[in-house]
Amino acid sequence: MQTDTDTKTDYSTLIADLARKGRAAQRKLARASDEEKAAGLRAAAKAIRADAPAILEANARDMAAGEERGLTGAMLDRLKLDEDRLDAIASAIENVASLPDPVGEIIDESTSPSNFGLVRRRIPIGLIGIIYESRPNVTADAAALCLRSGNAALLRGGSEAIHSNRALHAAFVKGLAEAGLPADAIQLMPTQDREAVGAMLKAAGLVDMIVPRGGKGLVARVQQDARVPVLAHLDGICHTYIHADADPAMARAIAVNAKMRRTGICGAMETLLIDANFPKGAEVLAAIADAGCELRGDERAQKLDPRVKPATAEDWDTEYLDAILSVAVVDDIDAAMEHIAAHSSGHTEAIITDNEEAAQRFLNEVDSAIVMHNASTQFADGGEFGLGAEIGIATGRLHARGPVALEGLTTYKWQVLGSGQARP
Amino acid sequence: MQTDTDTKTDYSTLIADLARKGRAAQRKLARASDEEKAAGLRAAAKAIRADAPAILEANARDMAAGEERGLTGAMLDRLKLDEDRLDAIASAIENVASLPDPVGEIIDESTSPSNFGLVRRRIPIGLIGIIYESRPNVTADAAALCLRSGNAALLRGGSEAIHSNRALHAAFVKGLAEAGLPADAIQLMPTQDREAVGAMLKAAGLVDMIVPRGGKGLVARVQQDARVPVLAHLDGICHTYIHADADPAMARAIAVNAKMRRTGICGAMETLLIDANFPKGAEVLAAIADAGCELRGDERAQKLDPRVKPATAEDWDTEYLDAILSVAVVDDIDAAMEHIAAHSSGHTEAIITDNEEAAQRFLNEVDSAIVMHNASTQFADGGEFGLGAEIGIATGRLHARGPVALEGLTTYKWQVLGSGQARP
Repeated sequence: MQTDTDTKTDYSTLIADLARKGRAAQRKLARASDEEKAAGLRAAAKAIRADAPAILEANARDMAAGEERGLTGAMLDRLKLDEDRLDAIASAIENVASLPDPVGEIIDESTSPSNFGLVRRRIPIGLIGIIYESRPNVTADAAALCLRSGNAALLRGGSEAIHSNRALHAAFVKGLAEAGLPADAIQLMPTQDREAVGAMLKAAGLVDMIVPRGGKGLVARVQQDARVPVLAHLDGICHTYIHADADPAMARAIAVNAKMRRTGICGAMETLLIDANFPKGAEVLAAIADAGCELRGDERAQKLDPRVKPATAEDWDTEYLDAILSVAVVDDIDAAMEHIAAHSSGHTEAIITDNEEAAQRFLNEVDSAIVMHNASTQFADGGEFGLGAEIGIATGRLHARGPVALEGLTTYKWQVLGSGQARP
Repeated sequence: MQTDTDTKTDYSTLIADLARKGRAAQRKLARASDEEKAAGLRAAAKAIRADAPAILEANARDMAAGEERGLTGAMLDRLKLDEDRLDAIASAIENVASLPDPVGEIIDESTSPSNFGLVRRRIPIGLIGIIYESRPNVTADAAALCLRSGNAALLRGGSEAIHSNRALHAAFVKGLAEAGLPADAIQLMPTQDREAVGAMLKAAGLVDMIVPRGGKGLVARVQQDARVPVLAHLDGICHTYIHADADPAMARAIAVNAKMRRTGICGAMETLLIDANFPKGAEVLAAIADAGCELRGDERAQKLDPRVKPATAEDWDTEYLDAILSVAVVDDIDAAMEHIAAHSSGHTEAIITDNEEAAQRFLNEVDSAIVMHNASTQFADGGEFGLGAEIGIATGRLHARGPVALEGLTTYKWQVLGSGQARP
């Protein structure tokens, strides 16, 4: 890592130069039609399929280097590409090409008091920075979503995937250029030096938004250092509350799914709140424990199943991302919502109940990006919401929340349609 | 100004305490109905009318102190309250009470691939910090808009208006309390120490958004120091482009209005671009000069009227907020849009033309928050857009752009309406 002042200055110059090129390309992209952008993405997918041998060879170099550096099996699996995975990457780009273009969409129209027409119209945000870790598919996914919504992207992937990312990026922009779109619309950071990331995070006015994709360490660092607006979630401490009037079979099925379907995703349940008046809490906990989950609970939860270990204060604020669940028994819906207000990360919370009034209270009063009634928190995903894809999930309160897809990569302008009006 | 470390620590504790109270009040407010919030605002207006003698007496103290400190006539005028102005403040609150409540509005609804219902519903943002200068009416205006949209506010006005602000705030929250709403929803910063403002700007996670209202110095300082998202505009360097096919009488009337109606507002035109093929440029410039405006232009503009002085490079990037206008003659619409891309602050730009194709290009390609066809840039205002009121105008690219009113003070959540779905 370089730290002397001269080098820092160079990195801000580098970022300014990349931003200048990206923004110039974006201005061209902003004028591209729906069909031109879709054709560009289909050409990018085709180029990735055609370049499969070179991309897989580059990936093999990353894999060899990763094995030498002693990456864990899970990390190597995230890094690995093969014919099937590469085909899935190309297909995902084609899927984004088939999504409706958000640019130009009219949000609302009206006539002003002075009788001019007013149209609020969606436009691209501009230049989006994407900072991600070892999965090379993010290179193509993020590039495709940015391009579909008329944005330029500056991509900075993990060092362990550098050869894979470069090969994927080269194929992607070759496709764009073949389709007549500016290759500079999608740029890959030319250095892996962390100081360059620092300069990117500080580049307010040059980079319009940063989306970090990766673990909590990465997201926390980006949120801490950025002067550019960041769209992200730090934690997914998701709660499921089983209300007194929950259907026991539904409660059991949803709770097991919310925790155990995939324990490592941000929408996995981390805390289960059981209403003291729900008669089948023991059966639900038994099903979760039988599925191989460690349970840590308060005193009342411990009485429901002998396998429940005592929870510490820290457990209520922990995103395990593993087969571990914290469990509390609560007196009523107010106590459940109080627990959630105190410990939630604002990602996704669910209530299981057949009581419509309780459901409405929960849906209206719990202040998270996603609130659910009678569904598994594992559904917290842009694809499952029918958005076609997602650039990530955001738990901030401004701009976009929950799963962020194409619409979240747009902003709007006001168009005033006058007939000679001067303001009185 | 206090600078020792202990005192700084106290200010972050103070802000945390104010935020805790504000957020608790906001949670109650989020559950208040449309009618309850409207009734609260009407009660606040009534309390301000009832407290007029005390408020005017407090204002007289500010005015006396201001005169003693040698404030300019313009500053004293901004500070001054009288019966009429106080009535206008109360009426403005009643007007906000009559605006539709944005909270609970459904943005869109759909059915997911797994057949659960999805509703995107507007909710308040949370706790909004408002930092403003000498106009005491902002205390009531900002409080009313925040309350109408279910948000809590932390207000920090200028020191020169401290007694007026305290008296207005006291009346406002007395009204709220009488109507059964939490008085802590609208808090006034209890100290004028600038270090407390600094702590407020850094309070990410406690304060959800900051809106600075005032001159460029204030906005620049807030944007520089804030870790909390800021909604604002720094400059309003607004352009009007008179296209070759503009109606000469319309061009003249709009140009004079855009510059001279009120020169001190952010929507005032600062640069006029005249197409070289527009035949009546001299008449337009003569009309503006005759209205008492100083003209600074490029060589071709100087040839149109002897009163046009040479412009320096700095003129193209200057927001005069005065009876001064920079003027350039441009070859065509592309040259006009290039000039705007290079010098605009992204606030408001207008084209005057009878050529629909040129108008469409300008409306689509100029990348400012507001783009106008055949209208005066002085219309860049929430009231003129029919929004009923505005908290300010934003030129950032995320969340809200242009005039920001109640909708810009909301965010949304996703409500998932399931029937027992577990994710496959």
